[in-house]
Amino acid sequence: LRRLLLTVRYIGTAYHGWQIQKNAVTVQSVLQDALAKTLDEEITVHGCSRTDAGVHALTYCLHFDTESQIPEKGIVMMLNRYLPDDIAALDCRAVPDDFHAQYSCKGKLYEYRIYTGSIRDPFRHSLCWHYPYKLDAQLMDRAARHIVGRKDFRAFCATGGNTEDTVRNVTHVSVRTEGDETVVSVAADGFLYNMVRIIVGTLVYVSQGKIAEDELPRIIESRDRTRAGITAPPCGLCLSKVFYEGCDGNG
Amino acid sequence: LRRLLLTVRYIGTAYHGWQIQKNAVTVQSVLQDALAKTLDEEITVHGCSRTDAGVHALTYCLHFDTESQIPEKGIVMMLNRYLPDDIAALDCRAVPDDFHAQYSCKGKLYEYRIYTGSIRDPFRHSLCWHYPYKLDAQLMDRAARHIVGRKDFRAFCATGGNTEDTVRNVTHVSVRTEGDETVVSVAADGFLYNMVRIIVGTLVYVSQGKIAEDELPRIIESRDRTRAGITAPPCGLCLSKVFYEGCDGNG
Repeated sequence: LRRLLLTVRYIGTAYHGWQIQKNAVTVQSVLQDALAKTLDEEITVHGCSRTDAGVHALTYCLHFDTESQIPEKGIVMMLNRYLPDDIAALDCRAVPDDFHAQYSCKGKLYEYRIYTGSIRDPFRHSLCWHYPYKLDAQLMDRAARHIVGRKDFRAFCATGGNTEDTVRNVTHVSVRTEGDETVVSVAADGFLYNMVRIIVGTLVYVSQGKIAEDELPRIIESRDRTRAGITAPPCGLCLSKVFYEGCDGNG
Repeated sequence: LRRLLLTVRYIGTAYHGWQIQKNAVTVQSVLQDALAKTLDEEITVHGCSRTDAGVHALTYCLHFDTESQIPEKGIVMMLNRYLPDDIAALDCRAVPDDFHAQYSCKGKLYEYRIYTGSIRDPFRHSLCWHYPYKLDAQLMDRAARHIVGRKDFRAFCATGGNTEDTVRNVTHVSVRTEGDETVVSVAADGFLYNMVRIIVGTLVYVSQGKIAEDELPRIIESRDRTRAGITAPPCGLCLSKVFYEGCDGNG
């Protein structure tokens, strides 16, 4: 029995998120089917996180155990023949038996893209939130610094998430302009349900003047979801990097 | 009656090309339906070119006549509500009665993107030709210079095209590297059926050593399609600019 770490990339538009569900096509179910064909055995995969419906991944890591003797490179090649065009296998490597894609993960980096052009752009439709107004990226970036640190982020957690412990360590938040896109980057040791999308919605509220730049510490302290901004739509969100001890799972 | 020049952008993946057809969804049919709803009258549009199935347009121009008094800006806004996500109206302006999107057109610029990464990339799947080998962009660029000029391009015209006059004036061809993409740009006063895709396939043959760099003038002189390279797939092709006297139709 070998434990393998597989890195994949996908456009999430056509999927009901990562996690397997009854009566819905998910990235996990498609990957398990393709792995079963590749390895000729039933495979259960364990992902590094549950991404929501419509969210993308530049780098997504998962592990599984197999009895197959096919070399790692061969698995990547065969898998890419069974996977649809919007999911690709990038890398496969052997890992120790106690490695776990979720529990061994040291942190993740998400990027959120907002397209601010006045007219919608078909080339960016499924990869950006179209917000056709000006955004003050410098102001948003200054406000974002209040989010960095080990804090209780319950105010940035969607109700319905049943997490007991809402303390997370946010190691990096920044907002930059790339042409007519505003890009929000958030790295943390872990994320609450909808956390990045609520951070983005809150920073957009800051740019709109609905929330003052220095109000963020009090919003976090309040642990009150209703004081933060809207939940930005899923299409702009992309899991960009996944960090592990010793290897970063990024191929 | 007003004649209007409309500029649109689209991802061609879901369409059977520009031109209206029976039993197939085309960009023209979708646009005519959206215009009919916007202007509350039957509209026939005249496009600047027939793009093939799967080909994209960053800038596509068309004209039509309307009795409607709705201002140009309002037409763009309303149209974008009726159009699907993969087609967007960018600009609308009044033009003289003798303007014609195709016959008044002075030239067009196409760009063709080849993704040369070893593993396929879902983020580029519908916008690039995935050719997972090295390309020598400098060699291709040198070979491409032989194509520039007013010449008979029958060797670069798909059989089945029923054009009598196969002389066109190619004003620019270049090949550049952008990260792990090779981009071929071709501008001309007009294009034959599949001409850009055959030019790209021929330049890839040059990089592969199947056609020598200095063989291109003789291939063109031969007027023999079988001496040129393959027809590159449609997904990498994008109509980028459309030129008119006085205005360039690019918004």
